[in-house]
Amino acid sequence: MATCKEVIGTSSDAAVYADTETMFQAVNELRHILGEDAVSVDKDDLESHGYSEWSTSNADLEPVAVVKPTTTEQVSAIAKVCTRFCVPMIPYGAGSSVEGNISAPYSGICIDLSAMDKIVAFHPDDMDVVVQPGVNWVALNETIKESGLFLPLDPSPTATIGGMVATNCSGTNAMRYGTMKDYVLNLTVVLADGSVIRTRHRPRKTSAGYNLNALFTGSEGTLGIITEVTVKLVVSPANLGVATVTFPTVKDAASAASKMIRSGAPLAALELMDDVQMRVINMNGGAGGRKWAELPTLFIKFSGSNHTIEEGIQLAKEAAKHHKYLSFDCASTEAEMQSLWSARKEALWACLAVRPEGTQIWSTDVAVPISKMAELIDQSKERASILGLFHTVLGHVGDGNFHQAIMYNPSKTDEQRAVAGCVEQMIEQAVELEGTVSGEHGIGLGKKGCLVKELGPATIGVMKALKNTLDPHWLLNPGKVFDK
Amino acid sequence: MATCKEVIGTSSDAAVYADTETMFQAVNELRHILGEDAVSVDKDDLESHGYSEWSTSNADLEPVAVVKPTTTEQVSAIAKVCTRFCVPMIPYGAGSSVEGNISAPYSGICIDLSAMDKIVAFHPDDMDVVVQPGVNWVALNETIKESGLFLPLDPSPTATIGGMVATNCSGTNAMRYGTMKDYVLNLTVVLADGSVIRTRHRPRKTSAGYNLNALFTGSEGTLGIITEVTVKLVVSPANLGVATVTFPTVKDAASAASKMIRSGAPLAALELMDDVQMRVINMNGGAGGRKWAELPTLFIKFSGSNHTIEEGIQLAKEAAKHHKYLSFDCASTEAEMQSLWSARKEALWACLAVRPEGTQIWSTDVAVPISKMAELIDQSKERASILGLFHTVLGHVGDGNFHQAIMYNPSKTDEQRAVAGCVEQMIEQAVELEGTVSGEHGIGLGKKGCLVKELGPATIGVMKALKNTLDPHWLLNPGKVFDK
Repeated sequence: MATCKEVIGTSSDAAVYADTETMFQAVNELRHILGEDAVSVDKDDLESHGYSEWSTSNADLEPVAVVKPTTTEQVSAIAKVCTRFCVPMIPYGAGSSVEGNISAPYSGICIDLSAMDKIVAFHPDDMDVVVQPGVNWVALNETIKESGLFLPLDPSPTATIGGMVATNCSGTNAMRYGTMKDYVLNLTVVLADGSVIRTRHRPRKTSAGYNLNALFTGSEGTLGIITEVTVKLVVSPANLGVATVTFPTVKDAASAASKMIRSGAPLAALELMDDVQMRVINMNGGAGGRKWAELPTLFIKFSGSNHTIEEGIQLAKEAAKHHKYLSFDCASTEAEMQSLWSARKEALWACLAVRPEGTQIWSTDVAVPISKMAELIDQSKERASILGLFHTVLGHVGDGNFHQAIMYNPSKTDEQRAVAGCVEQMIEQAVELEGTVSGEHGIGLGKKGCLVKELGPATIGVMKALKNTLDPHWLLNPGKVFDK
Repeated sequence: MATCKEVIGTSSDAAVYADTETMFQAVNELRHILGEDAVSVDKDDLESHGYSEWSTSNADLEPVAVVKPTTTEQVSAIAKVCTRFCVPMIPYGAGSSVEGNISAPYSGICIDLSAMDKIVAFHPDDMDVVVQPGVNWVALNETIKESGLFLPLDPSPTATIGGMVATNCSGTNAMRYGTMKDYVLNLTVVLADGSVIRTRHRPRKTSAGYNLNALFTGSEGTLGIITEVTVKLVVSPANLGVATVTFPTVKDAASAASKMIRSGAPLAALELMDDVQMRVINMNGGAGGRKWAELPTLFIKFSGSNHTIEEGIQLAKEAAKHHKYLSFDCASTEAEMQSLWSARKEALWACLAVRPEGTQIWSTDVAVPISKMAELIDQSKERASILGLFHTVLGHVGDGNFHQAIMYNPSKTDEQRAVAGCVEQMIEQAVELEGTVSGEHGIGLGKKGCLVKELGPATIGVMKALKNTLDPHWLLNPGKVFDK
């Protein structure tokens, strides 16, 4: 088979791809293989698959087509055609990623996996489930609820399992349950050349051979296309408890959070929202039917028996006392619990709802060693304040992971540049504090430069060598994570 | 620089290495670099580093030298020399692995990392610690005890962190806390050519770039030499509780274990020993000063507050009731707890102590989906019984992972062949039951054929391609995991 370079007729070391005409030849072949209905070149489809208003960055180009396979065999056939014609392949789940992960900077074909949405096999006795990549996690948990098991990740409610694996997602439950990489038992992966591998069977534990599950998890579709996933499940907690605690400063809240973790309290989640984020909640009508104190607030979930939760609440209160807490509210009924947690749950929606006409939100995440978080949040807020723009902080404080959201007017170039600079400073400081440039969103299109700052050229060199091995023509989601 | 093939003067596709004379040239260079004292060619040293009586398999050859570096820079210098002379490098920790992982089938230089045994930095507020690879985990936990934190792995008490990472070790705590891969935050790795990379900084959570931590963890020294490790720590439980429960059959015990897990009881460990293993404990004098019922027995650890433990014990008892338990003993004091757990702790030593003169133990591990474990144990025991040889089963039942140990006389070829066949059948059945050929010991020298049965050539092909990329001359621990 001719290589990409032979097809394209260049000897450049940079990644080279088919021209538009050739891409359409590939699209025509795919129509024959998948059927007309599975291939769309509709303008709206292309735009909705190539652009995201959630995203901090988007590409100038769009895919030339969106294809909707229904089986691993079809995905394999698509990869073979794309490899033959040198066409970029962009795997697409729910499009809920926020770093331009699904954009098409070199155009190409978007492989939308949403039609692969079947639960293949549920094994309650083994506490695992085999799913296609298009299965939505909320729907999955609803379907298996009766078994007393659940998948404890908590990303966007719209996210699908394939994308969750590709991004190594997490969310509010990560402190207690870990991230997506901790739940993947087996993957079926279509490689760039169309070959298909299964990484494992279904043991909950293994030391046999290299950990391909972890290599593909978080690789953002740049190493292979995930077409089936077996995930571990865990036992749903008997009961949950919720408390919210206010503090005079973010630093007090973060320090109290550290103390709570070290106390050994049975924490299921530990989240921080700053005074501005609490104000946003009130501006949006006040979640859970209450008006909230506009102060740095910890949102805490406890799990276990009622008695265990009660003990946990006492331990948390003790820890909060050392850091001058101003109020400590506990839910004693299911309805109160929902009400207390609702402010956390609605945080992002509230931001979107109250933003002034014409503004966008630049929302990004970093993670640092826990003891460094308060310092980083403080200084990041200070830098954003100098800009005079509306900005909030929301943190998965148990993991040292937080999000800063800054609202700006994208039509004002100066404003956009100032926000970009502010975000960059936060990221650079996170790296200086021995952290990472992304705790849960991935690198995508937007953070490639940051990754180099975090890891340096030697480590990135190893990653690129692995990429070269599995995808020698850089056809899989090119322009993401790093450039050739 | 000349490639290995040029040095050796062959165009074979198989891995080729220096002859003995050339290896000694490399050793001489290393004497200059490391000093005379750090390089040993002493016969006893070579034997103790190249052979293990714990191991199910050993190589015919030994290394030509054992070198003891003290810094990453020295390891890098060693790798450069070995690459230049085409000499195999065998990283060595405590030598406690059991699948021939540290053997030298192509001779070469054993890189003993035991002199790199410093705790580099302890960050209690970040709940992590940076260590050199030769740090022993028991000593580490003792050193940091006052902080209320610990590293919750539980392999051989002699094991060192570098080897624990290389093998992706686990042990009795894995059900509650996971395996080594879940604790690695950052690795310093010397690659085959002597270049040095750091995989990360110290965030507890990241989605930035490929997961090199997980790729190196469990790669058994075949992808790089680990010279520094940052591991996550967890909060030591406030209290522990221990119970032992006997059942009429292994199947009852395994089924009860499943039910306990699903009950949501706060289990810290869940271990199974069969009737024969309990007999061995008695034969060895009865651990904890007691005579044990010679019945399949579950050993259970609970953790949390005293009240949480009490609730857990009730949940476990309830689950055991459904499966006809015969006795349920709980520890109510620290001394009783030690006594009850001692039988589990001493299991392997008891086996070694009671084995008849001249016999060896063939001990291997597999892991299967939890619901398949009872069936596999039952049939494996039956097959071993037919041989008329002494055999015991010991399982990390919460993970579907168990060890079968068969005693045999290695001087009787028929006996050895029969045991090998019996083990092979167990492994094949584990694969049929969608399990893995090694839950925690790795592949090493002894299980290469098994790995192919588990994963198939396409998946192994991807692993080999990764190996080729990072170690093109197959100099790092050759003959392990798979052959070129």
